[in-house]
Amino acid sequence: MIVYGRNVAEELIKNNYYIKKVYLQNNFNDKLINSLLENIKIPIEYKSKQQMDDLAKGTHQGIILDIEDYKYAKLDTVLKSDPNFIVILDHLEDPHNLGAIIRTSEAAGVDAIIIPKDRQVGINSTVMKTSAGALTNMNIVSVTNLVSAIKELKNSGFWTVGTALDNSVDYRQIDYSSKIALIIGNEGKGMSRLVTEECDFIAKIPMYGDINSLNASVASGIMIYEVVRNRK
Amino acid sequence: MIVYGRNVAEELIKNNYYIKKVYLQNNFNDKLINSLLENIKIPIEYKSKQQMDDLAKGTHQGIILDIEDYKYAKLDTVLKSDPNFIVILDHLEDPHNLGAIIRTSEAAGVDAIIIPKDRQVGINSTVMKTSAGALTNMNIVSVTNLVSAIKELKNSGFWTVGTALDNSVDYRQIDYSSKIALIIGNEGKGMSRLVTEECDFIAKIPMYGDINSLNASVASGIMIYEVVRNRK
Repeated sequence: MIVYGRNVAEELIKNNYYIKKVYLQNNFNDKLINSLLENIKIPIEYKSKQQMDDLAKGTHQGIILDIEDYKYAKLDTVLKSDPNFIVILDHLEDPHNLGAIIRTSEAAGVDAIIIPKDRQVGINSTVMKTSAGALTNMNIVSVTNLVSAIKELKNSGFWTVGTALDNSVDYRQIDYSSKIALIIGNEGKGMSRLVTEECDFIAKIPMYGDINSLNASVASGIMIYEVVRNRK
Repeated sequence: MIVYGRNVAEELIKNNYYIKKVYLQNNFNDKLINSLLENIKIPIEYKSKQQMDDLAKGTHQGIILDIEDYKYAKLDTVLKSDPNFIVILDHLEDPHNLGAIIRTSEAAGVDAIIIPKDRQVGINSTVMKTSAGALTNMNIVSVTNLVSAIKELKNSGFWTVGTALDNSVDYRQIDYSSKIALIIGNEGKGMSRLVTEECDFIAKIPMYGDINSLNASVASGIMIYEVVRNRK
């Protein structure tokens, strides 16, 4: 799998992510990345700008990494580690949102993120780039059946908090001190019906404008830090 | 100026934004947008998929609008409307971040957003698309000198709250009940030195991971809703 750009390269190299090969543009000169590369044993190949452009098909800033495909965590393993804060994404489509949610989750101390296998953006190079290295620190579980996974969390003592405008309470009025599974809905359609039915609480973020629409990663950030506020 | 995609088109048509012309793909069939278009007098031109692709250079979903260039608001006019919550962007680069911050600001009831004229992403079609129509409801002021604008706000009774990790206090410990100008720094470099010197408070969002990096629009969302929490 091909990823590119200085930010993601720096984080992946620092975190000793599974890098198979590094491609550098002939005149590549980034002191920090060069010194990081000196300390690890990864094959480096130099290429012309044209070759780099062809390989990356995006803004590579002179560095491209060929990395192992992302390895998802298993729900069983995550549950054995006694997690108390899990984020569930109900069919998100935008890789920028997924990347930003991974960043926020890592910073906020979320234990794992669960995503459905189908009709959901997975871990691709845009996500790696947007998540700015946080991916290597976060357990992401990909499940075939989201509702079954939510039931399993509930059996493990989790309270499920969904997000929607209908039948919901102000997000500041919920008690987040127990084990919390926070569910974020699709960018356009919100949470699916079956997932909504599994929610112990449905939270809404109050809005005071006319358009009243929050980006999914922004709404997630506000909700995630509301959970953090109630416990740290 | 060319913008495209069903979401942004729907919002701009609904809000009667300055649309000069609508281009539809020959087989375009979106009941809601078609009915919206029936109620307004804007020239419509049908084109082939190839012509639409050439015009949009992006995912247009069958609809492209040719709209008037964005009209920025003036700081003087904004200040005369007795605002009490202004967001200032210190040289943001990413149009997705700007669009998401406009959405959040509109939903949270922010009175205006101030951006610097140079070295800052302006209102382009990605911003229009990402802001999901919120742009038409938000005053955006573009200023030559950000520091002068901040000084003017301070003279008008605003307290300035910056965001940074150094020399900062927990964002939950600041009193946001006065007139607040919230300053968001550049994605990579944060706030500039001169802008930092104008801050009455510098807030940090606590982080508990190893990478500890929040997307600029997510950090803005958390901060903006913290201000809202203190006053609504």
